[in-house]
Amino acid sequence: MVKIGGNVIDQPELLKDFLAHFAQLKGAKILVHGGGKRASLLAEKVGIPQTMVQGRRITDDASLEIVTMVYGGLINKQLVAQLQAETCRAIGVCGADGDLLRARKRPVQGIDFGWVGDILQVNTPLLDRWLGQGLTPVIAPLTHDGQGQLLNTNADTIAQKVAQALSTAFQVELYYFFDKKGVLADPTSTKSVLPFMDHESYQSLLSAGAISDGMVPKLENAFEALQQGVKKVILGAAEQVETVFLGQSGTQILL
Amino acid sequence: MVKIGGNVIDQPELLKDFLAHFAQLKGAKILVHGGGKRASLLAEKVGIPQTMVQGRRITDDASLEIVTMVYGGLINKQLVAQLQAETCRAIGVCGADGDLLRARKRPVQGIDFGWVGDILQVNTPLLDRWLGQGLTPVIAPLTHDGQGQLLNTNADTIAQKVAQALSTAFQVELYYFFDKKGVLADPTSTKSVLPFMDHESYQSLLSAGAISDGMVPKLENAFEALQQGVKKVILGAAEQVETVFLGQSGTQILL
Repeated sequence: MVKIGGNVIDQPELLKDFLAHFAQLKGAKILVHGGGKRASLLAEKVGIPQTMVQGRRITDDASLEIVTMVYGGLINKQLVAQLQAETCRAIGVCGADGDLLRARKRPVQGIDFGWVGDILQVNTPLLDRWLGQGLTPVIAPLTHDGQGQLLNTNADTIAQKVAQALSTAFQVELYYFFDKKGVLADPTSTKSVLPFMDHESYQSLLSAGAISDGMVPKLENAFEALQQGVKKVILGAAEQVETVFLGQSGTQILL
Repeated sequence: MVKIGGNVIDQPELLKDFLAHFAQLKGAKILVHGGGKRASLLAEKVGIPQTMVQGRRITDDASLEIVTMVYGGLINKQLVAQLQAETCRAIGVCGADGDLLRARKRPVQGIDFGWVGDILQVNTPLLDRWLGQGLTPVIAPLTHDGQGQLLNTNADTIAQKVAQALSTAFQVELYYFFDKKGVLADPTSTKSVLPFMDHESYQSLLSAGAISDGMVPKLENAFEALQQGVKKVILGAAEQVETVFLGQSGTQILL
């Protein structure tokens, strides 16, 4: 289970190298992608102002169309076409496809996020079948409510929930690729990557202010995944994809 | 095998009614959709001039991004989400997904259509498996060349080629929904719908100038499909979906 974000997607050379390594991974695999930066870019081009709260997009009707186009179409299909060229039998889907990810609109509690979905159910039997057929699902961060409504859902969370759901039947490893080489003990030094981080050291780094806002939900996802049966969670940089997959770089999260 | 175009997609009430009837069709089924009008609308919004030649979009890099977003993302995922609400287990794909439709860039012969693809191969075993699992593929009019390149491909042609490919194993019926109630004997009278049209009457209507330019490739597709083993081809209006599926309206094409 591998999650990539905008920093990989937006660098063609890096992406090509990354996908080549991903394609070579043995065993069943799944790719989940984000793409928020490109969505914001398109929104700007067509003149739809975007509001971000707590790192999440307030998703009105027009913004939902934007993310549906960018996540479900542009990025998803480009990734799939490139993976096919690496002889990886990719199939690009979102949470509506095959009823893969059933969600509900996030209830309004102070903030109305609009068409943002919280996942209720992962269609594990469907994923099982696809993986068993040698297909590699490439999942765009969109879900649906079963009533015809698409919903915008965070890609980190999708990766976590899908990894958890599959962990009852598989030994699941979850890799989050992001713009750093791992969790930094000292945020001012890119050389302070922690090879391992357990919940205790997370708590102490958090109280010391060494963990940035953006990292908090990512790490909370990671810990929850481990608690729910995911075997291994690693955070690393796409530039180091080869060694991250070998467990030689990045930060492994431990309970 | 059912193909719909922009006139259905762009009318929410009509689309809802259409999809409800489609969802109720017994047996294995596939939906292919177009969406050219919405693609042109987005292109206009972001300031990318579009050129159409012989009814086909000249697809440069920027236009390919537009159609990938609109066909592969917006329309495809909206259709899938709505079909799920009708308890139809839809899965939205394009030709790159699972290597479903392998194509090559159309060779330049006078006109360079850009990133337009001519289909070389349909992945019938994959479609067989999906249909056997009760999934309903919803196909966006995009293909790929196996080298990482997405290609824009006419939806009528995709419907025809997929129908042909499946006709070796299935009794395939192909329904084209468009903006008329069928083939008109007299283009000035919407009441002159022909219940049947064979190749001979097509030829005589064509020489009499009674068949418009836009209809020619659609009808050529229909005749080729029949020649290649498709059991039945019907052209009709989405407004009459119920009676078209019952064979009580529209035009049935005969060899």
